[in-house]
Order: sequence, then C-alpha cells, then structure tokens
Amino acid sequence: MAVKPVPAGKRRYRMTVAYDGTQYSGWQVQPHRKTVQWELERVILALTGESVRVDSSGRTDAGVHARGQVVHFDLAATPVLRRFRQGCNALLADDIRVLVVRRAPPGFHSRISAAGKEYRYFIWNGEIMPPFLRHYRAHVRKPLNVKAMRKAASLLVGKNDFAAFSANPHREVNGTVRHLRALKVARRGAEVSIVARGDGFLYKMVRSLAGFLIRVGTGEVEPEVGKTILHSRIRTARVPTAPPQGLFLWRVWY
Amino acid sequence: MAVKPVPAGKRRYRMTVAYDGTQYSGWQVQPHRKTVQWELERVILALTGESVRVDSSGRTDAGVHARGQVVHFDLAATPVLRRFRQGCNALLADDIRVLVVRRAPPGFHSRISAAGKEYRYFIWNGEIMPPFLRHYRAHVRKPLNVKAMRKAASLLVGKNDFAAFSANPHREVNGTVRHLRALKVARRGAEVSIVARGDGFLYKMVRSLAGFLIRVGTGEVEPEVGKTILHSRIRTARVPTAPPQGLFLWRVWY
Repeated sequence: MAVKPVPAGKRRYRMTVAYDGTQYSGWQVQPHRKTVQWELERVILALTGESVRVDSSGRTDAGVHARGQVVHFDLAATPVLRRFRQGCNALLADDIRVLVVRRAPPGFHSRISAAGKEYRYFIWNGEIMPPFLRHYRAHVRKPLNVKAMRKAASLLVGKNDFAAFSANPHREVNGTVRHLRALKVARRGAEVSIVARGDGFLYKMVRSLAGFLIRVGTGEVEPEVGKTILHSRIRTARVPTAPPQGLFLWRVWY
Repeated sequence: MAVKPVPAGKRRYRMTVAYDGTQYSGWQVQPHRKTVQWELERVILALTGESVRVDSSGRTDAGVHARGQVVHFDLAATPVLRRFRQGCNALLADDIRVLVVRRAPPGFHSRISAAGKEYRYFIWNGEIMPPFLRHYRAHVRKPLNVKAMRKAASLLVGKNDFAAFSANPHREVNGTVRHLRALKVARRGAEVSIVARGDGFLYKMVRSLAGFLIRVGTGEVEPEVGKTILHSRIRTARVPTAPPQGLFLWRVWY
C-alpha cells in the first residue's frame, strides 16, 4: 500500500505511546467520545498550534490497553524532541504517556510500514480478582488447563485464513489471511498469559483467539477443534470475544 | 487494652479484605464520603439485615490500598462462610474484595489483638510513570540511591520513639514508642520498594518514613540524620509525608 507523501514544508514524526484504555472509547476519534487519538491530536495542537491527524499502527477497542502503540503525524514546527515529549506528557491525562518521540523518514507509516505486532492477553484464573488488577485482567474462575490451551494454540500458528476468528471478515480490505507467527500460553500462579505475534491481525482477532483458548482451557472445547473452525471460515459460539480489559498492544516492529 | 465482649446471642467474625483505595476517602466512616468501612457495613446489612459496626486493624487514609486488611464484627446470624463471602463480593464494587471470612474467638479484636503489621511502599523511579501503575506507585524522577536509603533505614529499626515520624504525635493514645522490626529497601528495575514491619505504627508513620527515605535517596539528606531526627522527637521538613497511592497495608499478624 502506498504511503501518502508528507506535505511540503512538513516533517514526519513517530511516537511510541502507552495508555490505559479503561476510560477511553478506544483509539479512533468518534464524535462526543473520549478517545486516545483525539487526546493526542488535542495536545499536539495545544503545543504547536498545528491541527494534525495522528495515525496509529492499528485501532484499539474501548477498554483495550497499549504498552507500545506506535503513531505518526506531520508537523511544520521542528520542536526539540525531548521537550516536545515532556510537553505532551504535561498536557495529557496520566493514563496516556508518550514514551518516545522521533523524526521518521517521509515514507514511514505507523500501520503500513509495520512488519509485525505483538499483543498480550492476561487472565486472572482464580476465584477472587485482586482489586488492583481488575482493569487489566480478564477473570476466569474455572481452572484453566494450560497444556490443552498450548496444544490448541500450536494448531493455529502459521499462515491461515482467520475469518472465523474475526469480528467482521467482510470489511477486511486486505482479505482474512494472516501469518500468526507465535501464539504462546503460560501460567505464573493465578495468572495465565497469551502472547500473540504476527505480521498483522484482523479486527478483534486476538480477543477471538483468547476467547477460543479460554473455552479450550475450561474443557468446553477440544484443542483440535481450532483446525476445523479455521477451515470452516465461519465464526461460531465456540469463538467468543474475550473481554477487552485483558488485552494489551505490547509492541510493533518496523 | 480490654476487648469489648461480644453481645449475648452474637458471634464474632473476622475477615481479610483487599481494596484499591483510589476511589475512597480512606477506611473510616465519614458523613457524605465513600469509605471502605461504610461499604462493608452496607453489604453486611444487606446480606443479614443486621446493622453491624466493622472494625479494622487500623485506618487507612484516602488513596492508600490494602492487600490484607483484617476486620471484625459481630452477627446474630450464622451464615455459611463461603456463601457469605461470595455474597459480600457480589454486592461490593470490584475495588473491594473479601478474601477470607472466619469465625473468631470472642476475645479477638482486629486492632487490639494484632501482634504485628507489614506495610509496603512502592516508588516508580523513572522518568515516565507507566499509566497502568499510576494509582499504585509514588513517582520519583530523580535516581534514588538505594544503598543510602538502606543505610538510613537500618538506623531507624528498633524500639524507638517515632514522634518525629508521625503526623499527630499528641493524639496517639498509646504514646509514640513503637518497635520497628524491619525496614527494608529494594530495587527491581525502575521500581523501588520499602517494606516496613513492626508491632504497630503511628498515624502516617510509614508514609513519613518513606518520605524521609526518598529524601535520603535523592541525596537531599544524609542517611545518619535519621538518628538525629528520631532523638529530636520533632517533625521537620526533612520528613515529608510521601503520597498515599504508593502505600499498601500488606498483612497483619495475630
């Protein structure tokens, strides 16, 4: 896909941003809603006087978090980068933090240039959810069989048509085939984590994979069923969407 | 101190409770304020029809958290404990969780019977506070010298008069001498933690100790000054009260 050129007299900038998605209606600007994109555009306008469009590596839904979202935008101003970052953090609410600001080459696009992404999904698998983690973990009371989840995960890895693990396969402009490079499940005490790495993800794909793996972990679905679901290309009740607060966009590679 | 007897026809119960103090004006009931004590009394009334007074091992201030607060109360009802706990958690907001409910002997008092307590104070010692930790860490940008903090901490341990590390020494009914059994400082990456263990603590004592140790860590105060401050029994600007959100009541021993 072609990257739109940087307008004359402007330079492209790239930022790494972390946010707690609890209070936001997701990434994308929507009328009358608090969104992360809008907050960033608002503070850049306040700092530079320039009305910019901030694009990201991908939208995150309401309640989903980012540890390392990458965004880009174009500015006529040439701010001192360290000071610009500090200014952003001074004006932003403390649930959004700008971690890094860099100049980027004109051909850089946070989504189109991305070579891969990592998401992590966290589950609290115990009877009582610690109050400090309630916004950052999905709660599954029934003991999860991590061995079965690992087996199911291993069958989904590879270059596959993930239509059955997407919320809206018909609206995916680049089709529904994606290369899922890794899907790992680990337990540490009551915490079960799912790490998903790939060249790209469909809409709600990670939460669908997590929802399916949770069903496998509770014994409701056999691990091998994942292959059948993949081949069917049809989403069924065996693939629920796991709740948003367990999901973190962990990092993006270029 | 004498423990008031359990009224005839009632039994004493003890609960371990965890709470995120962010949204509360502390532990203690105050008119027109959201407090943890009130929330517990409210749900016990809803579950049993009994208006109880819930007492704790000690008050926590607004914004202070508890991982293992212990409380007690008396009931005429004899609920099934597991079901009672589940009922409490179903009615409470998810920032307060009842972890354990047990019958207690009539002489048990969550504060008077306590043999010791552990508090932990957490500091994020990096330039940018991760948004997910903002309610659970104090933020100190200047690099902390943990070795100096450890030295200062070691000089405060023991049976001492902590009047200079208390917010209101004249209102302490049991005097201002306490046995501070341990005061440990550790670093793990950008996270610096202070663990304080003792037979009892004065009002705001842990946050005062943390405030002083942070001053030592930034180099503003020499570690040895702690001894002088202790002996003076007078609180000065060298002992600021560290912010509440770093503090957790970790556990109570009986």
